[in-house]
Amino acid sequence: MAAHRFTPTLLHNTIGPHSPVLTIASGDTVTAATADAHGFDVNGVQIADRPNPMTGPFFIEGAEPGDALLITIRDIRMTRPTGWTFDVLSPNVVDPAAVIRFPARTKTEWLIDTGTGRARLAAPPPSLVNWSVSIEPMIGCFGVAPELGQAMSTATSGRYGGNMDYRGFGPGVEVMFPVSVPGALFFLGDVHACQSDGEIVGTGIETAAEVTFTARVLKGLKIGWPRGMNESEIFTIGNARPLDQALQHATTEMLDWLMTDYGLDEVAASHVMGQNVRYDVANVFNPAYSVACRVSKEALAGLR
Amino acid sequence: MAAHRFTPTLLHNTIGPHSPVLTIASGDTVTAATADAHGFDVNGVQIADRPNPMTGPFFIEGAEPGDALLITIRDIRMTRPTGWTFDVLSPNVVDPAAVIRFPARTKTEWLIDTGTGRARLAAPPPSLVNWSVSIEPMIGCFGVAPELGQAMSTATSGRYGGNMDYRGFGPGVEVMFPVSVPGALFFLGDVHACQSDGEIVGTGIETAAEVTFTARVLKGLKIGWPRGMNESEIFTIGNARPLDQALQHATTEMLDWLMTDYGLDEVAASHVMGQNVRYDVANVFNPAYSVACRVSKEALAGLR
Amino acid sequence: MAAHRFTPTLLHNTIGPHSPVLTIASGDTVTAATADAHGFDVNGVQIADRPNPMTGPFFIEGAEPGDALLITIRDIRMTRPTGWTFDVLSPNVVDPAAVIRFPARTKTEWLIDTGTGRARLAAPPPSLVNWSVSIEPMIGCFGVAPELGQAMSTATSGRYGGNMDYRGFGPGVEVMFPVSVPGALFFLGDVHACQSDGEIVGTGIETAAEVTFTARVLKGLKIGWPRGMNESEIFTIGNARPLDQALQHATTEMLDWLMTDYGLDEVAASHVMGQNVRYDVANVFNPAYSVACRVSKEALAGLR
Amino acid sequence: MAAHRFTPTLLHNTIGPHSPVLTIASGDTVTAATADAHGFDVNGVQIADRPNPMTGPFFIEGAEPGDALLITIRDIRMTRPTGWTFDVLSPNVVDPAAVIRFPARTKTEWLIDTGTGRARLAAPPPSLVNWSVSIEPMIGCFGVAPELGQAMSTATSGRYGGNMDYRGFGPGVEVMFPVSVPGALFFLGDVHACQSDGEIVGTGIETAAEVTFTARVLKGLKIGWPRGMNESEIFTIGNARPLDQALQHATTEMLDWLMTDYGLDEVAASHVMGQNVRYDVANVFNPAYSVACRVSKEALAGLR
Repeated sequence: MAAHRFTPTLLHNTIGPHSPVLTIASGDTVTAATADAHGFDVNGVQIADRPNPMTGPFFIEGAEPGDALLITIRDIRMTRPTGWTFDVLSPNVVDPAAVIRFPARTKTEWLIDTGTGRARLAAPPPSLVNWSVSIEPMIGCFGVAPELGQAMSTATSGRYGGNMDYRGFGPGVEVMFPVSVPGALFFLGDVHACQSDGEIVGTGIETAAEVTFTARVLKGLKIGWPRGMNESEIFTIGNARPLDQALQHATTEMLDWLMTDYGLDEVAASHVMGQNVRYDVANVFNPAYSVACRVSKEALAGLR
Repeated sequence: MAAHRFTPTLLHNTIGPHSPVLTIASGDTVTAATADAHGFDVNGVQIADRPNPMTGPFFIEGAEPGDALLITIRDIRMTRPTGWTFDVLSPNVVDPAAVIRFPARTKTEWLIDTGTGRARLAAPPPSLVNWSVSIEPMIGCFGVAPELGQAMSTATSGRYGGNMDYRGFGPGVEVMFPVSVPGALFFLGDVHACQSDGEIVGTGIETAAEVTFTARVLKGLKIGWPRGMNESEIFTIGNARPLDQALQHATTEMLDWLMTDYGLDEVAASHVMGQNVRYDVANVFNPAYSVACRVSKEALAGLR
Repeated sequence: MAAHRFTPTLLHNTIGPHSPVLTIASGDTVTAATADAHGFDVNGVQIADRPNPMTGPFFIEGAEPGDALLITIRDIRMTRPTGWTFDVLSPNVVDPAAVIRFPARTKTEWLIDTGTGRARLAAPPPSLVNWSVSIEPMIGCFGVAPELGQAMSTATSGRYGGNMDYRGFGPGVEVMFPVSVPGALFFLGDVHACQSDGEIVGTGIETAAEVTFTARVLKGLKIGWPRGMNESEIFTIGNARPLDQALQHATTEMLDWLMTDYGLDEVAASHVMGQNVRYDVANVFNPAYSVACRVSKEALAGLR
Repeated sequence: MAAHRFTPTLLHNTIGPHSPVLTIASGDTVTAATADAHGFDVNGVQIADRPNPMTGPFFIEGAEPGDALLITIRDIRMTRPTGWTFDVLSPNVVDPAAVIRFPARTKTEWLIDTGTGRARLAAPPPSLVNWSVSIEPMIGCFGVAPELGQAMSTATSGRYGGNMDYRGFGPGVEVMFPVSVPGALFFLGDVHACQSDGEIVGTGIETAAEVTFTARVLKGLKIGWPRGMNESEIFTIGNARPLDQALQHATTEMLDWLMTDYGLDEVAASHVMGQNVRYDVANVFNPAYSVACRVSKEALAGLR
């Protein structure tokens, strides 16, 4: 159960079969620095290119195809007092005819005050001078090398994880990924200080960070899509366009989970899900959208 | 500010320009009985046909095209100790290939215990004998006569409201509909004792009820889609297929709301929404899906 | 087998249970005048409002719910030398980000020369002075009263037909609609002198016309969606958003057709369709999109 | 203008930055053998794994990022007298509720008779004993290495081409791909003896073949998506889910083409497209669907 520190020099814009930067044992904890979505580090120096340069990959000993990799997000520390966002809603989240009146988007700076826990625009328009948002850090992009030897742009996501941009991926959460290559090859980066559902301006508050995570191999656990747990809920993630399909993947994965782990058949699992499921629209901006299907642990009381 | 009681005899399967059953003043309160989605009343007697037979319409004096109708849901009382659901996930919410293994759906009875606040299956399979759900009543279908003299099936929804099946439509919520005809012609019905996000088995726990609501005319308030407020949030509803389009309608309506009422331009409104919006997948089953776009009142602090 | 002439005075903006304007026998032929999509008649006089005012309904004796109504389009005559279109691609048919550069759309006049069979812009920009299009007239909106007593805007479409805007609906084509009310109540209008696939500027060349059609009742023929035949093909139409769903409806209806009329099971019908189906994107603009699923008669040779 | 012959030994299941198997000059012609979608060669020996193993990549001298690669398909020869298909419609192309009655799909053998130009089932059910289809060979999957160093599964497609499964990719067609890496790195395979629009059983008639193509570098021609030309038409291809988005990409690329090469502004190009565009649903089965947007050369007469 060793603890490691890692600061990247060469970051990756694809999630794929790259050479590991560090080999760790199952159960080890790593504190890793991450650059922001455009490659700027803690000092505001650009050390990598867009999109979403990744720290990693980390080789986890013992991980083999057919296993799952369990990542526990222990901490996300904002290490830079500034972040940035785009400044206008993404054209794909409003009625097509409404887009004609939109200005071209620009990058906007934010000030991140971890003391007060609030972020505010560095140069707000008059209407927003007294307005700020609560800091709720999350990991935008993380996952493991996909099957077939693919190398996928960090702009998108799939069964292997990737750029899911889900505000539920904050400190305390456990996430499982299906392993496709020996060592799993885990990547992470693209931390946001805050983000709406849907990532509807195309960004959260993008910033540099230090993430502390523990990686554990779950031998022989076959899963189809990322799964997760927090204090009160279990959840699954589906990544695809359109939203309907992302929701189908997440729902099917939850159905499989309840049938396998709770001994329910299709009908019993449907009863449980049909009165209890909650959905989050994680992102509706990236090449693949992401939907979370959640069930509270309380709703599962009385099963098994 | 009169109070009325109303028990329907002739229910409607379309929302349209039907003859009013009661004329009320703006500000009046009505307690109205509703049948379940297949037309069964408080006594389990079928008094109307599917789909979703409506109580009403109520003619609200002074309502004209170009106004909004504000409905405050004061109370929803379960009046029958039984409800029903379908028993298998709807084929459209899971991966298409997973549907091949599904059994045909059947109607399943539930017992609703308003004393304990729990509902349970009348004849549970062994895996669910110790399992129940919390009662959280909501209105599945309500709205006003649409434009153009249309009469729309109560299976679907649109700008006028309709079968939105949103679990957020519970007691204490205020909802606004755009008025298209004199008197607005307000309909309601299809109460659920409980429902997941998405209505993913195709039903909530369908039952008969008594709903108490207050109707008020908001003169000259032009809105494009249903809007609402609860204790902590404001929200908008978009109704369309696919989910992407329902989300676009809801997001555009929220953008218009923030720009009109909070004096924000596109960029300022985008900043507010881009870090604060929450989405609910209300239903992903009906001919039109429904998505809610929510913003907390706290997130609007400091504006205006 | 009587022949009728009909010129409308009161046109309808919904397809629903309106009072018949003419009662005809099965097998009768009608020549009916139609106004353009904004209600302008042969003389350019506005006699009705948008959207797509309908001529009709025609009550066909003997038609009952559960039958199909077969309409043979015998002739479509352009009766006005002018038509109009919108002048810029609809925002929903291009990449969302491309919409920002689009000008607002305006109505543009065209000159229709039935002598040469060509239509040209009345006031072309320099780049189009030598450019014209071939006239290929079609019916944009036609169908029968839908089920449940619904009255549907003529902007949209469904199982009952409606605003399908399919360029395949020209002279010589036979189209079947599922009958939901006694007499079927057949409506028609919205003739185009020409149109692309998809109706991607939101219009064809909209004009007034005279349409000659024969109506015949097919007793006991249950169909789910409009079906049609021309010289070389049979086809089905699905109407829904998004395109994927419209395609699903059309494909399922073709599958049912081949299984019922050609004695094929799912596998045999899949073989026939899997190597032979052709799709047309009829419209990708209206509230419901329309997709045609076509199979050539030649591809069916050797069956039965 | 050399001519090469190439028979692969090591095939690829991703399109990416693999080592070239042959370096050719711009203008050279290659005759290359291809295995079928599951890796079976001309002799029915499995020489590679699924999905769609690729022959190549070919390094074209002089090709640089920012150029286009023009591939002329000169010939596609069926080299094996057998092919195979799946035997039931893909669940995603029919109404979700219809899937419940479908049998599980199996692989089915076909006999390909290049003498008669017909293909027939090797063991037809009674209903299909007298039925056959016309051979119209096409390339299912071809394209160039994508940007960012990505390696994409040959099951899917994108701006770089890939598994587009368009029956329009037959002999005589010219296709352009946007070059992202030096030498372009061109791959091809997955030949079909025949296929419907949409590839709705999930396959065409999959077989081994020899393809003869000429590769030419178009220096400085920036394109966003694959473009093509045949005797009578120009066309563009969009690859994405859902169909709506694939259609948007293809339509936007055609708009750009007409504006750049024909000197039209948005309005003039919209007039030309709005009355003339044709769409093909190339595939509605793969992870990315493909739509072709076509305009006949005749419709462009009088421009420029």
